[in-house]
Amino acid sequence: MTINRKIVLKKSPEGIPVEGDFELLEEEINGPGSNQFLSKTIHLSLDPYIRGVITGRHIYSEKVNIGDTIVGRTVSEIIESNHPEFKKGETVLSSNGWQEYGISDGEGVRKLTGHQGKLSTALGIMGMPGLTAYAGLMVYGEPKEGDILVVSAASGPVGCMVGQIAQIHGAKAIGIAGTEEKCKTVKDTFGFEECINYKTENIDQRIKELCPDGVDIYFDNVGGETLDIMTKNLAYEARIVLCGFMTQYNLSSPPPGPNLGPIVGARATIRGVVVYDHYDKQDEFISKANQWLEDGKIKYIEDEAIGIEKTPAQFCKLMRGENFGKTIVTM
Amino acid sequence: MTINRKIVLKKSPEGIPVEGDFELLEEEINGPGSNQFLSKTIHLSLDPYIRGVITGRHIYSEKVNIGDTIVGRTVSEIIESNHPEFKKGETVLSSNGWQEYGISDGEGVRKLTGHQGKLSTALGIMGMPGLTAYAGLMVYGEPKEGDILVVSAASGPVGCMVGQIAQIHGAKAIGIAGTEEKCKTVKDTFGFEECINYKTENIDQRIKELCPDGVDIYFDNVGGETLDIMTKNLAYEARIVLCGFMTQYNLSSPPPGPNLGPIVGARATIRGVVVYDHYDKQDEFISKANQWLEDGKIKYIEDEAIGIEKTPAQFCKLMRGENFGKTIVTM
Repeated sequence: MTINRKIVLKKSPEGIPVEGDFELLEEEINGPGSNQFLSKTIHLSLDPYIRGVITGRHIYSEKVNIGDTIVGRTVSEIIESNHPEFKKGETVLSSNGWQEYGISDGEGVRKLTGHQGKLSTALGIMGMPGLTAYAGLMVYGEPKEGDILVVSAASGPVGCMVGQIAQIHGAKAIGIAGTEEKCKTVKDTFGFEECINYKTENIDQRIKELCPDGVDIYFDNVGGETLDIMTKNLAYEARIVLCGFMTQYNLSSPPPGPNLGPIVGARATIRGVVVYDHYDKQDEFISKANQWLEDGKIKYIEDEAIGIEKTPAQFCKLMRGENFGKTIVTM
Repeated sequence: MTINRKIVLKKSPEGIPVEGDFELLEEEINGPGSNQFLSKTIHLSLDPYIRGVITGRHIYSEKVNIGDTIVGRTVSEIIESNHPEFKKGETVLSSNGWQEYGISDGEGVRKLTGHQGKLSTALGIMGMPGLTAYAGLMVYGEPKEGDILVVSAASGPVGCMVGQIAQIHGAKAIGIAGTEEKCKTVKDTFGFEECINYKTENIDQRIKELCPDGVDIYFDNVGGETLDIMTKNLAYEARIVLCGFMTQYNLSSPPPGPNLGPIVGARATIRGVVVYDHYDKQDEFISKANQWLEDGKIKYIEDEAIGIEKTPAQFCKLMRGENFGKTIVTM
């Protein structure tokens, strides 16, 4: 008879989770049913998104309720199988969660045949964090020779891959991390040009020193104040890739101010428009707009004051939002 | 002898400008010098960006100092000319600013020959606000048949053009404005499907009723809370076009939270990344990453705990940001 040790949710965390929110239970395990296999967990991955799953805020996973085993991706070895495609002795990437054994019907399970290096990397740099870094950087960040990339949580599996892949593509990588030891590793092990310790250094000042012409790609894993600072240090046509919101996962309600979390959920794009960039469209626009006016497809309204002396009052009204239509002064 | 009446800055506004911040002065005017012309202002445009110019926050214009005539675009008639390309009697789009007469060397001046409709529209829907609407919507908003577009400051020259041009391209337009009268005009004159009065209605609730599947394009002229609400009501792959920040122009310091103003200045793009969208890149990534690992181009670090019973402590450490590298538990 085999005993499975598992960790269940004891109570819903408030703020940063504490050990007392969890409970270790033991249970006998049954063998696999038909078309199932039983695997023994080798490595369990712990990721920040699990905090959202526990609270029911992670829109891609079902909520973990009180008494449920916490979910999580695992590298495991199949020890008993009634499944035609999975054999005893095979090593797989599965989702056993926080327990020593797991039963699976094979859905979403990937065999680790031919995996290079340590098995545990299938949970990190060669797994979902690695793919997150790769896809986010290559699809949205578009690193080019000579670009300056900044990535937060730079010593984590996403951050270290973002910086390394960017460097492989000719970009210069600057990290942001929270201890001297992390910063040292980011530079010495991952080869980043610099790493800013956000707990002891002024990010804004350091970025301005290191990137006087601004940052071409900011890959954001944290949100909050760091994101705010980085938006003020962008190079022309910079790309921000929103990936993680570590500063928000422990909050019970969203932070004040524009919370960019929903931008990620919606796969939305934010662009700014400055009309001075688009004078090449002036002729096209005027010719179309003339036609639209003529066809009665376009209407307009004006808020007109007469006489130069009315200008200040008319402007103050505009700035109080009390104007109605295009505000002009006619002499 | 002709007297020019002009409005100069008397003191720098704090918050919403008041008339006392400005002063009306009279002066004699001189005729144009060589290669210059003198024009009489017909219409003067008042635009919110002028508030930023006065404070020196508008990065595209020189600051207006105390005693300076306030700047602004004008439609004017040339009444005396020593310029070979501009003739007496011609009507031009110029930048006389807040005064009845202006002298110009012709730089940035456009002749209004062939202008359709009222001359004053050259300052509004046929001018810079119109082009802003057109370029922002067509280049970044990409309206398609059936899209739902929401635009704030919908009765203004940018907003009303955004909604009308979107409708010409088959999108459904919903406006946000600040009075019943504005909302009525947005619907009755500009043909928008609906218009939300943000002063009396709950924007979030109304948008959820009107667009249960979310908004495809949000064209933002105001920033602040409205932008925040709209980020939570986006359809999949929505586009946000940041154009104006009416809620911020009167502030003396930037608002708390991520201030998106600099995104516009940098012409930056913000995208979110969700790894689940990118499984098609999994094979490509793993094959490349295997090669990079083999070539020693990629390093990694792990923060490993041993034993299922260590899982809660290891997770809490991760959520306190005290982990270092990819956090795993090995059984």
